[in-house]
Amino acid sequence: MSNDPAVVIGIDYGTLSGRAVVVSVADGTELGTAVHEYRHGVVDRRLPATDAPLGPDWALQIPQDWRDVLRYAVPQALANAGVAPGQVIGIGTDFTACTVLPTTVDGTPLCELEDLQDRPHAYPKLWRHHAAQPQADRINALAAELGEDWLPRYGGKISSEWEYAKALQVLEEDPEVYERAQRWIEAADWIVWELCGRETRNLCTAGYKGIHQDGKRPSPEYLAKLNPGFADFTEKLEHPLSAMGTVAGGLTARAAAWTGVPEGTPVAIGNVDAHVTNVAAQAVAPGQMLAVMGTSTCHVMNSDVLAEVPGMCGVVANGVTPGLWGYEAGQSGVGDIFAWFVGCGLPEDYYAQATSRGLSPHELLTEKAATQKVGQHGLVALDWQSGNRSVLVDHNLSGVLIGSTLATAPEDIYRALMEATAFGTRTIIEDFEKSGVAVSELVIAGGMLRNPFLLQIYADVTRRPLSTIGSEQGPALGSAIHAAVAAGAYPDVYSASKAMGKINKNVYVPDEERARSYDALYAIYTELHDHFGRGGSNALHALRGIRNAAAS
Amino acid sequence: MSNDPAVVIGIDYGTLSGRAVVVSVADGTELGTAVHEYRHGVVDRRLPATDAPLGPDWALQIPQDWRDVLRYAVPQALANAGVAPGQVIGIGTDFTACTVLPTTVDGTPLCELEDLQDRPHAYPKLWRHHAAQPQADRINALAAELGEDWLPRYGGKISSEWEYAKALQVLEEDPEVYERAQRWIEAADWIVWELCGRETRNLCTAGYKGIHQDGKRPSPEYLAKLNPGFADFTEKLEHPLSAMGTVAGGLTARAAAWTGVPEGTPVAIGNVDAHVTNVAAQAVAPGQMLAVMGTSTCHVMNSDVLAEVPGMCGVVANGVTPGLWGYEAGQSGVGDIFAWFVGCGLPEDYYAQATSRGLSPHELLTEKAATQKVGQHGLVALDWQSGNRSVLVDHNLSGVLIGSTLATAPEDIYRALMEATAFGTRTIIEDFEKSGVAVSELVIAGGMLRNPFLLQIYADVTRRPLSTIGSEQGPALGSAIHAAVAAGAYPDVYSASKAMGKINKNVYVPDEERARSYDALYAIYTELHDHFGRGGSNALHALRGIRNAAAS
Repeated sequence: MSNDPAVVIGIDYGTLSGRAVVVSVADGTELGTAVHEYRHGVVDRRLPATDAPLGPDWALQIPQDWRDVLRYAVPQALANAGVAPGQVIGIGTDFTACTVLPTTVDGTPLCELEDLQDRPHAYPKLWRHHAAQPQADRINALAAELGEDWLPRYGGKISSEWEYAKALQVLEEDPEVYERAQRWIEAADWIVWELCGRETRNLCTAGYKGIHQDGKRPSPEYLAKLNPGFADFTEKLEHPLSAMGTVAGGLTARAAAWTGVPEGTPVAIGNVDAHVTNVAAQAVAPGQMLAVMGTSTCHVMNSDVLAEVPGMCGVVANGVTPGLWGYEAGQSGVGDIFAWFVGCGLPEDYYAQATSRGLSPHELLTEKAATQKVGQHGLVALDWQSGNRSVLVDHNLSGVLIGSTLATAPEDIYRALMEATAFGTRTIIEDFEKSGVAVSELVIAGGMLRNPFLLQIYADVTRRPLSTIGSEQGPALGSAIHAAVAAGAYPDVYSASKAMGKINKNVYVPDEERARSYDALYAIYTELHDHFGRGGSNALHALRGIRNAAAS
Repeated sequence: MSNDPAVVIGIDYGTLSGRAVVVSVADGTELGTAVHEYRHGVVDRRLPATDAPLGPDWALQIPQDWRDVLRYAVPQALANAGVAPGQVIGIGTDFTACTVLPTTVDGTPLCELEDLQDRPHAYPKLWRHHAAQPQADRINALAAELGEDWLPRYGGKISSEWEYAKALQVLEEDPEVYERAQRWIEAADWIVWELCGRETRNLCTAGYKGIHQDGKRPSPEYLAKLNPGFADFTEKLEHPLSAMGTVAGGLTARAAAWTGVPEGTPVAIGNVDAHVTNVAAQAVAPGQMLAVMGTSTCHVMNSDVLAEVPGMCGVVANGVTPGLWGYEAGQSGVGDIFAWFVGCGLPEDYYAQATSRGLSPHELLTEKAATQKVGQHGLVALDWQSGNRSVLVDHNLSGVLIGSTLATAPEDIYRALMEATAFGTRTIIEDFEKSGVAVSELVIAGGMLRNPFLLQIYADVTRRPLSTIGSEQGPALGSAIHAAVAAGAYPDVYSASKAMGKINKNVYVPDEERARSYDALYAIYTELHDHFGRGGSNALHALRGIRNAAAS
């Protein structure tokens, strides 16, 4: 077998499915891949165990769905690649974040304990769970009042999606579950625990989602002021942190049986789907902003300067790759918004056209929208159907559409929504640049790579060249690269990225005439953004309150 | 034939079709009806004669389509009624307004002259033609500047839909057509000309659409300041005005041949579809506001006080019935907005559900929306997809929807649009009451009678009992009642209304709990209304400008 080339396996846990990719260590060639759809998908309406309804803005997942990726996708990817198990020198994983769950001290998810399976708070909370906004609001208000030094590292606001807000919601809504949660752990670290049988904690999620800065976490005094029972919360997190690309441990016998990979194979420290992609896209130099555009968009970028960017998700030392400040920002709805719109329906003849021409509804709408001149639809939208992650950090915001007339067609609204997400990205870029963090280039990864028209809008709206990752499996490739480093095949992630990562430079170039036309629409977007998002109008918050009261 | 009871024919010209109803003179019983759909419908994309594209916001009609109603619907209605032509003692008509056309001195539409059929401005402009907004803006600005005494009679603003703005657009965009238009005449009066062979002018349209107040029209000096060529415009209108319910003349031999009604039968003076309906609904007492709810809504009400209501369409002495001040207000989009939304599409399974259950998409969406609590959808919309007639009088406004999330369903938006139109009506009622004109009751007529859920929303939102007209052919019945008066069967419209009109009292009664919940949504509606409609934001106007520039 000595002639067979070494491979690594990257496993990417997304929102609806997990994907395994078998990759050549030498040059990053993707040899085989397999996808496993989660059987329960996103649990946001009823708890499967009891069929009890969940509240608005809830989003849970089922841990067994994640294990099934190891059991089905990994062996299938190996088979598809046609490689022998012995060729595998390492395994790396990445996960959505902050997807977080309560476990016992041995890593058993509380929702798998028989007496807790009817308790919604015992289940993993998906990144998209937005019901902890009241807790996030209090975390932020108190931290601002007390001048907590970690707050500016998160753009001035902790998200309701992250570890502290979600845990505080558990404490306040189901104290018994909180009490029995000996560990409160990112799914990114939990899956590694499942693979190698020991708890580890990666510094990426600890920094971006767990408020770990300069070697420490929020103080017990601060936490006690949020809720006396929350004072010792960090005990559920405390553990030495591991750098990205290091080894968590060797594959257990149980996980070897699931995956078909030999016991003892090195497993890399857990990572985040967006952050792990930078090395896959060779987007690690300062100023190269990676935008992982899928259901949502994550912006991840290295910089050699530390700045407090208002509304960013966070800045973490070595958070993406060693030796640089890693910045993260995000848009909580992108592909999700397009899918929502299509799900709301199309004219009957559009369905017929799409079917007869073999197009998806998205392809059909894009084609119709692409024939228009900029601004011809007369619409501007705010891309807040899933709240706003950056730069407002407010998940109680919601979508806005202005300018509709009796002549407005579905493709007009679809295009306005595409443009709104591009305006959202431009808002984030301008926020970084105003704070002294230069953004020179956008590197695009994720499912939206399939829509060239959308990407051209982004180039025009941001007036920046767009490069694209040279892989359709960016996160999985990134995890594989980290696996190769963990296995010792490369001295660091930079050299591994150079050998195994893939980028296509300047695929989309801005057109100045269209860019000028978009400036006029962007001005209106900004007016609406600030009016509805920065206190000019409380209408969206009022509506959210009315909705929640009516639904309860 | 002396034993056969006397009948009258009411002919109602709507936006898409014309309807004839044969009615018993004694008690208003509807004996037979027939509808003729206009072959060309609304001409708003391409001119049929040349296939040349029309500009945005244009809406034309074809006079022959109107004649065809006389040729097909009237004989069919007589046949359906099973009455002999000799029983017909009078004919009355009503029309959409302001639908207006240029003709020669003998009433020939300019678009029927061979050398002008390729000229869009030679065609009748439908009420919904909104491309004269720049002219309306100048008419209003100049009148305000000069303190023209007629301006407050129209709530401070002349609509782009009316006679002066549309004529000024013709002058400025096609001066030759303007020059050759010896008469500029409401379709309401033109169709009467077709029936009885002589020009007449009704005081209703002259007052509401033709700026005729206190016996005079705008001065040549004022008109010359708008455009020197416009100074003598009123010459194209000048003619003695006739009161509602009087006789225009006898049916010509030509029209007798079309209709099958005996030559010489009395024809009533022209009237407007909304205004003629008050007598049909017995809504003639002060404070009884008739809302004719169809594609758009027209509010028509008598009062014994004269007030200057900001943003109303107009107040005209004897404009509805003799001896009272007739008020008009309106919403330019109601059913049109619901139809637009449905036209934008539904989920595939909704189409399947509607088909399998024999429901229209509107019925299906209404059923789904009706199960919700007030406010549960989290949305508020502005009902301006077709501009705003009252109280803002601005057709460059457009629709707004706020509050959408990834969980927003089509029925949520549909309900929000229904509610938005109810909020629009409440805005108008509050405007009247603030000005000292009491509104005690809403009487509903029009196609929206078919949606009880919608009407309950109106009762709850306005906190007023809703009565309904007891006829599905309100305007045609109203025209028939006027025909009966013109024929001398009744001494006046009040007695004819009492004998022949039909009302069901207090069919919908407000629910105080829902009304309180709607108050919270209405507060947000009002905030958006004032922000986008009264100068807080120029975004909608800016978008309209961008759209028009991009489309041109």
